[in-house]
Amino acid sequence: MHSVGICGSDVHYWQHGRIGDFIVKKPMVLGHEASGTVVKVGSLVKHLQQGDRVAIEPGAPREIDEFCKIGRYNLSPTIFFCATPPDDGNLCRFYKHDANFCYKLPDNVTFEEGALIEPLSVGIHTCRRAGVTLGNKVFVCGAGPIGLVNLLVAKAMGAAQVVVTDLSASRLAKAKEAGADFVLQITNESPQEIASKVEGLLGGKPEVTIECTGAEAAIQAGIYATCPGGTLMLVGLGSEMVNVPLVHAAIREVDIKGVFRYCNTWPMAISMLASKSVNVKSLVTHRFPLEKALEAFETSKKGLGLKVMIKCDPNDQNP
Amino acid sequence: MHSVGICGSDVHYWQHGRIGDFIVKKPMVLGHEASGTVVKVGSLVKHLQQGDRVAIEPGAPREIDEFCKIGRYNLSPTIFFCATPPDDGNLCRFYKHDANFCYKLPDNVTFEEGALIEPLSVGIHTCRRAGVTLGNKVFVCGAGPIGLVNLLVAKAMGAAQVVVTDLSASRLAKAKEAGADFVLQITNESPQEIASKVEGLLGGKPEVTIECTGAEAAIQAGIYATCPGGTLMLVGLGSEMVNVPLVHAAIREVDIKGVFRYCNTWPMAISMLASKSVNVKSLVTHRFPLEKALEAFETSKKGLGLKVMIKCDPNDQNP
Amino acid sequence: MHSVGICGSDVHYWQHGRIGDFIVKKPMVLGHEASGTVVKVGSLVKHLQQGDRVAIEPGAPREIDEFCKIGRYNLSPTIFFCATPPDDGNLCRFYKHDANFCYKLPDNVTFEEGALIEPLSVGIHTCRRAGVTLGNKVFVCGAGPIGLVNLLVAKAMGAAQVVVTDLSASRLAKAKEAGADFVLQITNESPQEIASKVEGLLGGKPEVTIECTGAEAAIQAGIYATCPGGTLMLVGLGSEMVNVPLVHAAIREVDIKGVFRYCNTWPMAISMLASKSVNVKSLVTHRFPLEKALEAFETSKKGLGLKVMIKCDPNDQNP
Amino acid sequence: MHSVGICGSDVHYWQHGRIGDFIVKKPMVLGHEASGTVVKVGSLVKHLQQGDRVAIEPGAPREIDEFCKIGRYNLSPTIFFCATPPDDGNLCRFYKHDANFCYKLPDNVTFEEGALIEPLSVGIHTCRRAGVTLGNKVFVCGAGPIGLVNLLVAKAMGAAQVVVTDLSASRLAKAKEAGADFVLQITNESPQEIASKVEGLLGGKPEVTIECTGAEAAIQAGIYATCPGGTLMLVGLGSEMVNVPLVHAAIREVDIKGVFRYCNTWPMAISMLASKSVNVKSLVTHRFPLEKALEAFETSKKGLGLKVMIKCDPNDQNP
Repeated sequence: MHSVGICGSDVHYWQHGRIGDFIVKKPMVLGHEASGTVVKVGSLVKHLQQGDRVAIEPGAPREIDEFCKIGRYNLSPTIFFCATPPDDGNLCRFYKHDANFCYKLPDNVTFEEGALIEPLSVGIHTCRRAGVTLGNKVFVCGAGPIGLVNLLVAKAMGAAQVVVTDLSASRLAKAKEAGADFVLQITNESPQEIASKVEGLLGGKPEVTIECTGAEAAIQAGIYATCPGGTLMLVGLGSEMVNVPLVHAAIREVDIKGVFRYCNTWPMAISMLASKSVNVKSLVTHRFPLEKALEAFETSKKGLGLKVMIKCDPNDQNP
Repeated sequence: MHSVGICGSDVHYWQHGRIGDFIVKKPMVLGHEASGTVVKVGSLVKHLQQGDRVAIEPGAPREIDEFCKIGRYNLSPTIFFCATPPDDGNLCRFYKHDANFCYKLPDNVTFEEGALIEPLSVGIHTCRRAGVTLGNKVFVCGAGPIGLVNLLVAKAMGAAQVVVTDLSASRLAKAKEAGADFVLQITNESPQEIASKVEGLLGGKPEVTIECTGAEAAIQAGIYATCPGGTLMLVGLGSEMVNVPLVHAAIREVDIKGVFRYCNTWPMAISMLASKSVNVKSLVTHRFPLEKALEAFETSKKGLGLKVMIKCDPNDQNP
Repeated sequence: MHSVGICGSDVHYWQHGRIGDFIVKKPMVLGHEASGTVVKVGSLVKHLQQGDRVAIEPGAPREIDEFCKIGRYNLSPTIFFCATPPDDGNLCRFYKHDANFCYKLPDNVTFEEGALIEPLSVGIHTCRRAGVTLGNKVFVCGAGPIGLVNLLVAKAMGAAQVVVTDLSASRLAKAKEAGADFVLQITNESPQEIASKVEGLLGGKPEVTIECTGAEAAIQAGIYATCPGGTLMLVGLGSEMVNVPLVHAAIREVDIKGVFRYCNTWPMAISMLASKSVNVKSLVTHRFPLEKALEAFETSKKGLGLKVMIKCDPNDQNP
Repeated sequence: MHSVGICGSDVHYWQHGRIGDFIVKKPMVLGHEASGTVVKVGSLVKHLQQGDRVAIEPGAPREIDEFCKIGRYNLSPTIFFCATPPDDGNLCRFYKHDANFCYKLPDNVTFEEGALIEPLSVGIHTCRRAGVTLGNKVFVCGAGPIGLVNLLVAKAMGAAQVVVTDLSASRLAKAKEAGADFVLQITNESPQEIASKVEGLLGGKPEVTIECTGAEAAIQAGIYATCPGGTLMLVGLGSEMVNVPLVHAAIREVDIKGVFRYCNTWPMAISMLASKSVNVKSLVTHRFPLEKALEAFETSKKGLGLKVMIKCDPNDQNP
């Protein structure tokens, strides 16, 4: 392994030992945003060989079940998934993974870019399910790493104008750097007021809203903001029950869709990175060698910076 | 005009003078489920002539705006719509309508079938947006006229098994007659219990749930019941705010979609009726001549039967 | 194994030893339309057990490659496929197959219906890719088994009117029995004349044309016949090069799509058969015990009847 | 009117008096790539006022017919279309057009960009129907104005790598400038050889091929080149009948689709131009005042440069 990013879920398992119904019952290796170098392949593997630099898709179906057959393998109930208990992750020196879910990196894509394909995949899966297309107005709610990758992907798919909202001015500054056309700092506006301000900035209601916070008020704002016939994507996870103006979405045919991880994103992400149509490098704000993993997790836990990267290869700590 | 059905919204305007933001401010003719005979056409009309029997699509765009251009003219804010204030409906002897929204009926389709295309269209628009397809399991919540047309259309689109739920045993009996594979009378089950019973009857979670009541508990049941990757359609309209387990839908990629009226349904409905691939005749349970319209509305208001039909042609009171 | 249908490709391999680039280089078991009873399962198999009656999907991906991941596993270049050299088929007493591609049959679906899911799947895959929907006019060119299953599936998906053409009056009689609204016997009409007659019978140009013969003139007729914005499906395979009025399709936005086998059809086919929404039983016109396989193949080769079924279970020769 | 581009079809009508079944029978004004300033609006027009700078969509449906209703108004047989006989175009000083098909230009979009929305729309309509998406490999056959706009739009929709082929080195140089990742000059290669070279350059077969020449050999190359499950778009118009390996496309599920003009492209094109996500300015290589229209047409006829723009406003000849 070369580079492994720390995700909020890694920190959560470390601190709380569970996420919803997924409970850590025995020691588990963390890490699922990863890239490395092939040291050995099975006898049937033809597309990879020793020495290949690869990005790892952490979810690999254990069987070709009904969901896998229709191309939505992320919904497979028996899927192997790095660092979701009881499956071990890949934050370690050496790791074995299904070869069909290891993707060769071109020379002009770095290991860290390879590791960042995981969060980028959330953006790809979301924007694709949202149907983002040429000239769209897009409202991204939340300027954390997931909000930012959605911003990057929406622009890459041809969105004309993206507005990003957040409570934090410093996160919004990052969004602006990353290409947001507009940013809006939320203080104590009502959901309707947020919707109205978003519409004002974009010069019209957005066709697509991508909600990355999980907050009830933000979901409400997303419903009010989205234009008739548009789509509201639910990416952020919050309370089990929320109070929302569902009828306001329904009678305007605003579709509400969620995402569970991602599928079919690595090949297109690699193509995008190789062709420089998306730039994720600036997401990495901290780096630690594997020996200092604890310090790395503490940094991530404090919410400092955006993405903390752990460097697993003692001989190569480069990006 | 020949036959005009009474819809719940007609009764509501009559009794309350408004539905949401649509307020009756001056006398308004009711009626929007209608068929009749052409007595005169404009000089540019080529597809119709005097004597043609036609079904009337009540919503006719006033301009080719952005929604009309993309084929979703039902979302046009300036659309003319029969019996939505301030636009007059067609429950009368003679009525003028945009010729492009009058559709010639084949000889083997009756006037009443023509009038019933309006409620049938709600089923078509819903099932089409839901993506109902061959072999689907479908859960229809509510056995009123809208639940029944969704049942009929889902079966016509190839659904293998449809379960219909309702509080009323007599309405469920109608659903059974109309082709429901299973019916389930709801008493005091929790939303989770309903979901579980639906799954038991269908032998698996439904790919599509069509919620026709608007009740909060029913929307919750719909979310719990629908299979991962499936779709929950919101057709019934209830409270402005509802408390729902949205995250339970989101992380299983259950899409939530509403419908506003319909578009592009009349031609296919006429083809279906002409080819006998759907049977709506039994929906009509009461008939009154136009002179007894008040009695007809009283009957509909009491919730007797399913569909009350008003016969506007004094010389022909046949179906 | 219980029942195995003979397909034209089986006869072709038997007679010619090859189909295109697929060449029989060593002895190969034929048969890929099959059903049987589970006698043994692997230790990881949970959805099947000994004694289960199953239908067999003959194509089972050997790996989760790029095509499998997106739900189009029929296009996987390394797929295992019964009776496509060098892979053995299942026309035998006992046969081993990937458990994920064996589907349990409900009690009310016979073994022969289970075997007929294979040809039925061609119809499902074709009509689904064609986007057949409610009220459609459909033109099926060719009344052999593939034409008939397309007819059956198109009707099950809600097509209002289907016209079937063929050179043979007896095959057209079968199509009429199977539910064709119109049949048209072709003699020496030009492609344009065929298109014109089809339009006349349907009362308009078909939205979908399904070409099952592979003949150049039929493809031409399909292009001329299909309505603007419609779809022409190429199912029949003919000459490598054909002379066609492609520009006539292009400028009317008539999409031309082919099919290669099928994917994701067995579960919905079983649901359809269980719910009696499609009837394939009458396709079987001849039955032979496994011992008389040669006679069965001779019958099929002569083009007698529609589907010849070989009964592999010496203790149960029932349908 | 301010700026009107000359299209190949304008030159063709001028020289030959017809294109296919469209015959010029009486004097007709040419021009359909146009922008100008509103001098007067009808009393019902609310979205425009005197002084607004607008781009003109040349096709405006005369009625809301079956094609218009489903959002494919470009297929409407009664559509008004500038400079398609007998409808007059807008290469003149003053011109009247359906207000719903005049689109206000933002201050940062020039008149010439507004006029160029017309050819750009061909690219948008084509790439959208092709389903170009993130990371795609795209093969554009032909480096004339239509090839170039397809290149620009494919990149804007997220295509990772685009290869453009042509016979002319100078046109390929333009393609390279416009952002082509690879260019390939065709000399006497066979269609299979072209396909092979394209695959070599892209590092794999393209998911989308956009054929802009209409040449039989190019269509053949497009079929051979496109990857299984991909799409071949036919944009160029050539001979009525072509000899093509259709079965090679069919059994690999390569869909073949054409385009007829465009629909629903102006709003997104304006958004793209306003947000600078596409750059069309360099397409204009020549400018002439309206008085020198003949010279402008002669220039276009000779195939000099890419786009010849005629400046209709004597007071403002700026871009």
